[in-house]
Amino acid sequence: MNNLNETIKGIKGLDEKVMKKAKERIDNLIKPPGSLGRLEEISIHLSGITGKLHPKVDNKSVIVMAADHGVYEEKVAVFDQSVTVIQTKNFIKGVTGVCALAKQAKADVIAVDVGIKKDLNLEGIINRKIKYGTSNMAKGPAMTKEEAIKAIEVGIEIANKEIDKGKNILATGEMGICNTTPSSAIVSVIGGYEPSLVTGVGANYPKDKLDHKASVIKKAIEINKPNKEDAIDILSKVGGLEIGAMAGVMLQGANRRIPVVVDGFICTAAALIACKIEPKCREFLIPSHFSKEKAAKIASDLLGLKPMLKMDMRLGEGSGAVLMFNLIEAATYMNDEMITFKEAGIEI
Amino acid sequence: MNNLNETIKGIKGLDEKVMKKAKERIDNLIKPPGSLGRLEEISIHLSGITGKLHPKVDNKSVIVMAADHGVYEEKVAVFDQSVTVIQTKNFIKGVTGVCALAKQAKADVIAVDVGIKKDLNLEGIINRKIKYGTSNMAKGPAMTKEEAIKAIEVGIEIANKEIDKGKNILATGEMGICNTTPSSAIVSVIGGYEPSLVTGVGANYPKDKLDHKASVIKKAIEINKPNKEDAIDILSKVGGLEIGAMAGVMLQGANRRIPVVVDGFICTAAALIACKIEPKCREFLIPSHFSKEKAAKIASDLLGLKPMLKMDMRLGEGSGAVLMFNLIEAATYMNDEMITFKEAGIEI
Repeated sequence: MNNLNETIKGIKGLDEKVMKKAKERIDNLIKPPGSLGRLEEISIHLSGITGKLHPKVDNKSVIVMAADHGVYEEKVAVFDQSVTVIQTKNFIKGVTGVCALAKQAKADVIAVDVGIKKDLNLEGIINRKIKYGTSNMAKGPAMTKEEAIKAIEVGIEIANKEIDKGKNILATGEMGICNTTPSSAIVSVIGGYEPSLVTGVGANYPKDKLDHKASVIKKAIEINKPNKEDAIDILSKVGGLEIGAMAGVMLQGANRRIPVVVDGFICTAAALIACKIEPKCREFLIPSHFSKEKAAKIASDLLGLKPMLKMDMRLGEGSGAVLMFNLIEAATYMNDEMITFKEAGIEI
Repeated sequence: MNNLNETIKGIKGLDEKVMKKAKERIDNLIKPPGSLGRLEEISIHLSGITGKLHPKVDNKSVIVMAADHGVYEEKVAVFDQSVTVIQTKNFIKGVTGVCALAKQAKADVIAVDVGIKKDLNLEGIINRKIKYGTSNMAKGPAMTKEEAIKAIEVGIEIANKEIDKGKNILATGEMGICNTTPSSAIVSVIGGYEPSLVTGVGANYPKDKLDHKASVIKKAIEINKPNKEDAIDILSKVGGLEIGAMAGVMLQGANRRIPVVVDGFICTAAALIACKIEPKCREFLIPSHFSKEKAAKIASDLLGLKPMLKMDMRLGEGSGAVLMFNLIEAATYMNDEMITFKEAGIEI
């Protein structure tokens, strides 16, 4: 089932009954109750997602969605657009940031072309190209509503395949030169912030040109007038193909009750789209790191996500989410390996 | 060489030359320079510690020092003192918090009795008991200066053995009912803070009794008058045996140029002792998590350590340090697996 409407229909809330049972046991493990903090929270959360008292997260994939952006022509990036192609190829070679970290975390890296400007036709890169990059959102909509839905359905399909392969935890990542620009636009529209407040340096964009980047975003919003209550409208007008595809992964994770780890700023923008489509999707997301990108905190706050890793990272690709895999797995080890006070013969 | 003076003599600074080379390569890996933040910093730091361009941290031990405290009789803990014995036994069984997390991080847990009140004589627990718990510091010195040095030398010896076994990264952990009390005393003396400002709830001590806990610490400092410039004096008068032993692990790590990961509040107090003995020891320490214990930030700030994990944890045992092992290992994967822009054919 790779259809958006069917996926949305399948999304129910967390399993509160199992969460209550999980919490009871975790409160009685041999430690002062609450002293393992977020690990306890994650473990209970995983029980709510999966409906299991001892869920596993040992079979991991990070799905990296790659696409280009028409707004690139407004000079909102320092890197050449060809880098999207080069880096997507490098995902297959295993030599990028996310690949290195995924190797340590024993996670697969799945690279998908949802809309790169050039044809790649390289074995290992999943070709789901919807169009050769979005149109320039500073001049009109980035894509049609049909294309936006298609992008989401690419994510839904790929996540489905990964879960069918036995993956029990997913993360989203992205590659697309200048994609902090549409991400800031999404956060600006959904959060009601002035573009200048949510525009950051992305991949080393010069600080003294940030006014220009923000003005491009402002123009894109003014021209397109996205309806802040309609996620598909926002995504199609000021979003990106990879952003839609990541939202699709999140929706499918929620539908199939598999946790999805959210990376930094761009992924959080995708999460805002996914949760605007179906608010219950939020309950299946796990945050990862505090990205260094300017509006990352604003975006996380809009979703009520509280990241845990303070690594001063801002690479994207899913790199922060992959680092988080280890900590989430550690939470399951806490749950599986520790004994209770009663089992230890300690009276409290 | 398990002697304190010889260990101190062996401690030199970081290898700046190798760090410069390491930084040059890391700045040229295929990512915006600096975008992997603390991972880049850790990788360069590891090069400075080890003198290698591609250091490994794949052979890990957490050394858990256990001891009792005479100040327990002042009613500064909610858990019974017998828990020190029970939990130390549980380290061997692999069922405590640090054991669960160490299993996930593929780290060995080494449990050492430096001064538990009862005899354990259990296979698997290293017996280096110096005395049956410290004396009550609210009535006089916790131990003699000779005992304090012996405690440090236990740490030096155990770290030496682990490094001889091939361990290339160590972490410190501790078990000792009421050991936030001497830790707060150490931070109070070294930092010059009023005891009430650095006294927290430890293992779920009632908040409405914190005044009592702080007054016990104040009394211990007033009675013993530790010299804030003399680490051995502080350790012997208001410290603990396991705190001294952890300081010894840190000093030996520095001497043998092996990184030592610092856990939360109590370990940071031990680090304050180690770095007061030999300030260059600081350069071989890697912080881990922001402990929830009240004065954890004050203690880290005194050392200039900036933790990275915001997990709201306050268990001790080395649990936060062990979580950090994964991230430090991820930094080495970044360094080993990523290619440079030049190698990728990207011009910048």
